[in-house]
Amino acid sequence: MKPIRKLCSLGSHRVLEPAGVLPQVARKLDATPVAHANEILCDVEALNIDSASFRQIVEASDGDVARVAAHVLALVADRGKHHNPVTGSGGMFVGRVRAVGAGLTGHAGLKAGDRIASLVSLTLTPLRIDAIDRIDMATGRIWIRGTAVLFETGLYAALPDDLPDDVALAVLDVAGAPAQVRRLVLPGQTVAVVGADGKSGLLACAQARERAGPAGRVVGIGPDRATAGARLLVDAGYVDTFVEADARDVFAILAAIPDALPELADVTISCVNVPGTELSSILLTKDRGTIYFFSMSTSFTAAALGAEGVGKDVTMMVGNGYAKGHAATALQTLRDNPPLRRYFIERFAATAPAATPVS
Amino acid sequence: MKPIRKLCSLGSHRVLEPAGVLPQVARKLDATPVAHANEILCDVEALNIDSASFRQIVEASDGDVARVAAHVLALVADRGKHHNPVTGSGGMFVGRVRAVGAGLTGHAGLKAGDRIASLVSLTLTPLRIDAIDRIDMATGRIWIRGTAVLFETGLYAALPDDLPDDVALAVLDVAGAPAQVRRLVLPGQTVAVVGADGKSGLLACAQARERAGPAGRVVGIGPDRATAGARLLVDAGYVDTFVEADARDVFAILAAIPDALPELADVTISCVNVPGTELSSILLTKDRGTIYFFSMSTSFTAAALGAEGVGKDVTMMVGNGYAKGHAATALQTLRDNPPLRRYFIERFAATAPAATPVS
Repeated sequence: MKPIRKLCSLGSHRVLEPAGVLPQVARKLDATPVAHANEILCDVEALNIDSASFRQIVEASDGDVARVAAHVLALVADRGKHHNPVTGSGGMFVGRVRAVGAGLTGHAGLKAGDRIASLVSLTLTPLRIDAIDRIDMATGRIWIRGTAVLFETGLYAALPDDLPDDVALAVLDVAGAPAQVRRLVLPGQTVAVVGADGKSGLLACAQARERAGPAGRVVGIGPDRATAGARLLVDAGYVDTFVEADARDVFAILAAIPDALPELADVTISCVNVPGTELSSILLTKDRGTIYFFSMSTSFTAAALGAEGVGKDVTMMVGNGYAKGHAATALQTLRDNPPLRRYFIERFAATAPAATPVS
Repeated sequence: MKPIRKLCSLGSHRVLEPAGVLPQVARKLDATPVAHANEILCDVEALNIDSASFRQIVEASDGDVARVAAHVLALVADRGKHHNPVTGSGGMFVGRVRAVGAGLTGHAGLKAGDRIASLVSLTLTPLRIDAIDRIDMATGRIWIRGTAVLFETGLYAALPDDLPDDVALAVLDVAGAPAQVRRLVLPGQTVAVVGADGKSGLLACAQARERAGPAGRVVGIGPDRATAGARLLVDAGYVDTFVEADARDVFAILAAIPDALPELADVTISCVNVPGTELSSILLTKDRGTIYFFSMSTSFTAAALGAEGVGKDVTMMVGNGYAKGHAATALQTLRDNPPLRRYFIERFAATAPAATPVS
């Protein structure tokens, strides 16, 4: 069956197998570097691998940079996209527009040469890697030579002028987290952020602090209070308190609750990058409260059955990576919070020298 | 470490491995048939296996009833609970209280001899099966001899007097669906129910029809318009229209949208029991609409990345099996809708003769 026009906008014409599915569900995409009429072809400079996916790949490669590179090359060659079959997640890319399809010429003024970041997952983005140059083992950034294709419905953001590219990319990668916090948190509420000292957690805390206001309370939770992120949260006042606890250990979480969250949280944001923390988020949240699972390592059944199992009537939300205006909200969160901005610049703008060359 | 009192209420003292987790996460539970001070020991009469789990077991057993029985026996003997490792889901049980722990003597008036249905998942319920007597291959009910343990926080419902046990059990098993629909749907809204002709889908449609009111619109979706459930939906007016489409096929769903849901749904309820339908639910829902994933076969990453991938700003909720008052709401949905009540009685009350004896 020849796909109808509507479907082409979702990229179904790039699916090699199985037939009849869209690119995210597909096992394999056609990553041929041409721009069809409704596509944008980009020269990719770097991939920002999803935290859960990168962690899994690093562990499977025993932390060896050459093996990580080989793993990613093989994965992308096999699937035509960076879609980690273990974690189900991908990441995003930054690059320069090489060609805009004939049918999209007026598409938001985009033209060849523009530098953009993709805001759709690499799990549905046709990707070809010719070579991997460097890998930052600390952040999951991979500098490559290669090409990617954006579909008509694919989201992207022009890279801003007032922030280094790498910093903007790091923020855009998790743009959904601060944008959703801005929607969910009301003045005076108590907010718990699990995995608070990571990239999405920091942005979530800063946004929660602003939204909850002076009458509210923000509690950050992470396994180590000595990380740079944890210290930033406390020093800049993005959290009222930081609880040192591993969210995989419900015993530790339960022990921390009486002091840190005696009335539990109205809103809990899960930004962890490890599995097995769903029940801790549930136990931290009050009845009729809301849990926002931003983490891609969330298990649907663990969340659903966990809440039922402890008789907790909570609203649990799947972290949608997209929300209208999320890129602008996320970048503004950084601009509005100078200590956070400095931290992101220190950590992400200078990654190139720290990255390990491959080969 | 000896668990502290708080944790015992969640059943951690029954965890055999690994250490430091709660029963739902545990690989193996101690199902010894005694009632500790904060436990309720029950003689189990029947298990109601979760639809996704039962389907997987039946498929793995090539539909052979003896092999299904052997599969379930081995699974429960191995884990001390019915926790399907493939689907991550379980089910519930009905039985008679044998003993109430000394510390729970006044527990809501519960006493030995009372007949109850568990409202917590079998994935966290210590279960011992001495023998399997009969299996209803159509509904996933399994009549056994054995015992189960409820913890202090474990939810249960006394079986009502005005409905046959089997019918009450069938309803209570999916009580979260109609209860959440009642909360989510507002008068005048458009509701799509995916997997509408199954047990949870039927209750969801009836509740949605009532809540949406005459100005609202309810659309049921399922792969076959000739099923008894699909015909009930149309004949009793629980849906305004029934769309015959397999939700795994996004092409079919997209083709149906212009006629059935030209403005898309405000609220979509996913009640399917097969994987791979997340994107269809997303495509059926309007921007800023809500999707309630009641189905245990939902993939968290497929939902999260699917919405992002097509640039759809929707609120996606994890189906919490528990909501305050959900048992009462679900049973009342049946009482308020005589055609639905008749259907459930025809289908579930008379299952015993249809069930296949094992051995």
